[in-house]
Amino acid sequence: MYSISDEELDHVYRFALDLANGAGEMLQKSVRGRMQSNSLTNLQQEEKESAVDLVTKADEDVEAFIKRSIQEKFPSHHFIGEETYSKGASRQYLIGDEPTWCVDPLDGTVNFIHLFPMYCVSIGFVVNGKPVVGVINAPFLKQTFSACKGRGAWLNEKQKLPLIRNPIPPIPPNAPSGCIFSCEWGKDRRDHPDSNMHRKIEVFLNMAAEIGGRGGKGGMAHGIRSLGSATMDIAYTAMGAFDIWWEGGCWEWDVCAGICILEEAGGLITTSNPPNDFETAPIEPVKLGSRLYLGIRPAGPSSIETSREGQERAIRETWRRVRGLDYLRPGV
Amino acid sequence: MYSISDEELDHVYRFALDLANGAGEMLQKSVRGRMQSNSLTNLQQEEKESAVDLVTKADEDVEAFIKRSIQEKFPSHHFIGEETYSKGASRQYLIGDEPTWCVDPLDGTVNFIHLFPMYCVSIGFVVNGKPVVGVINAPFLKQTFSACKGRGAWLNEKQKLPLIRNPIPPIPPNAPSGCIFSCEWGKDRRDHPDSNMHRKIEVFLNMAAEIGGRGGKGGMAHGIRSLGSATMDIAYTAMGAFDIWWEGGCWEWDVCAGICILEEAGGLITTSNPPNDFETAPIEPVKLGSRLYLGIRPAGPSSIETSREGQERAIRETWRRVRGLDYLRPGV
Repeated sequence: MYSISDEELDHVYRFALDLANGAGEMLQKSVRGRMQSNSLTNLQQEEKESAVDLVTKADEDVEAFIKRSIQEKFPSHHFIGEETYSKGASRQYLIGDEPTWCVDPLDGTVNFIHLFPMYCVSIGFVVNGKPVVGVINAPFLKQTFSACKGRGAWLNEKQKLPLIRNPIPPIPPNAPSGCIFSCEWGKDRRDHPDSNMHRKIEVFLNMAAEIGGRGGKGGMAHGIRSLGSATMDIAYTAMGAFDIWWEGGCWEWDVCAGICILEEAGGLITTSNPPNDFETAPIEPVKLGSRLYLGIRPAGPSSIETSREGQERAIRETWRRVRGLDYLRPGV
Repeated sequence: MYSISDEELDHVYRFALDLANGAGEMLQKSVRGRMQSNSLTNLQQEEKESAVDLVTKADEDVEAFIKRSIQEKFPSHHFIGEETYSKGASRQYLIGDEPTWCVDPLDGTVNFIHLFPMYCVSIGFVVNGKPVVGVINAPFLKQTFSACKGRGAWLNEKQKLPLIRNPIPPIPPNAPSGCIFSCEWGKDRRDHPDSNMHRKIEVFLNMAAEIGGRGGKGGMAHGIRSLGSATMDIAYTAMGAFDIWWEGGCWEWDVCAGICILEEAGGLITTSNPPNDFETAPIEPVKLGSRLYLGIRPAGPSSIETSREGQERAIRETWRRVRGLDYLRPGV
């Protein structure tokens, strides 16, 4: 086990905020270039696994900037970044106990390419396997979400999360009714009856359908949202805007900063794949590298439930309506 | 037919911009109140048609402000607003040739309640049945989309739409592959096999699935987005961020400003329900009150197509993959 002093943690947090700011500025510089000159062709896109998995030069430049900055400042810290990891052959989970930065230089790459504002830099810092600092900077929106363990979570360093907090609303009594449910379509678009895409569709339908529909699974969610960035989805869950964030297939760099921010805001996060005994199983802490995530927003108590009881109820009511997704990960 | 001078139109446009700004500020004032005091219970929600169709006091106050301001400034103009219209019994389309303001004081009400930033004020102005001024103000995001007939479309009055414009990208050769497709789940959540919800799901699946999937209808769209506000969807289509916006069930106040902005930006908009001869049918101009909309972003020419040819191809490739939705409207 590693120990890190409060002073060191402050130092890391301050540095992460500045770094995310600088990286966001790099993304916007690239955007301004595209607004003034030839756009898509200038982006130097390469196809990775499929036409929806695009990597841009901006991704790689921003990751190189972040990695270099961290190595100069904290030479003993480890570094995991989407672009460098994706070039390796292994899909093993590599984060151990030692202090490790876990970075997505650009989440929402498709949005970035199309200039839809929902893209961001995500910088997480992990000690003993737990995210303890997280910064998400969405530069087009001028929104920075940040947290440091024990110090709460913030929007633009001045508004405490969740935004509505006097009091923080309890989980609605008939959740998912009254809830906004957030999930992305993702890159796995195979048209097999049992593919992840078809499993997700089943979940969307269960969440959206009228009460009594879908063989009793109809949840009549208040809304279904797909933004094209899992990182922004978690950020808005921490903000309290989304009630339920359910996802599979993303990686530790997509969620590392977000998990810290969501937990510091008072949210609860566990696995998206329901256990067999979903009505009574203990709610296990999320595994950073699991690729399976279910987050519930910060919630206040009601007259009959604690905050945690309401959140656990939302998790079980989600598990009741979802199917497990097929994402395996060696060593997690 | 009414005629309106350039000077009058300028006057209306300037007034609409100021009005949307004032209305957006009212929404944010209500938001700030909720961040400081009891939230959901203070919103004075009433249920209209279902639990997902909430009307808030802010809606009504903002509409009253907009209506009063217009009546003072332009006493001869007609006014259609969501809140006043919805209280009437008729569902007839009421906009004629005379100058008419068509206003949604708050689009994305569910987002507004949950404090997800995708909500806006939408102010349109119609002459001879055509939207000629449109302003969409999203106050949380500090984004104002605006247009005046013949003068182009703008973000925050300074960036011309679409944002990427040197050159404006053509429609991708295998659209909907390479495209972001935007559509909302809507309020009709009936679980009949032929309900609008199930028809929409079929469309989502066709758009998302791999090429060759879905019996040949798989479109492998670059992304599927649902923001919870049709008005914001159109705004982002005008911006060029979304390539295809397909929707049914919204009303003239949801789309009036957006149609003007999309058309002035260079987009194309028609009906979402495919004609029988969808491969060859003429692309008819959109009917404001039709409740059925299909918008394509502004596009540049390619080496083999004009802008319009690319947009028409995107419309036909969308029609090929969608089902007609069941929204009837007397008199349209």
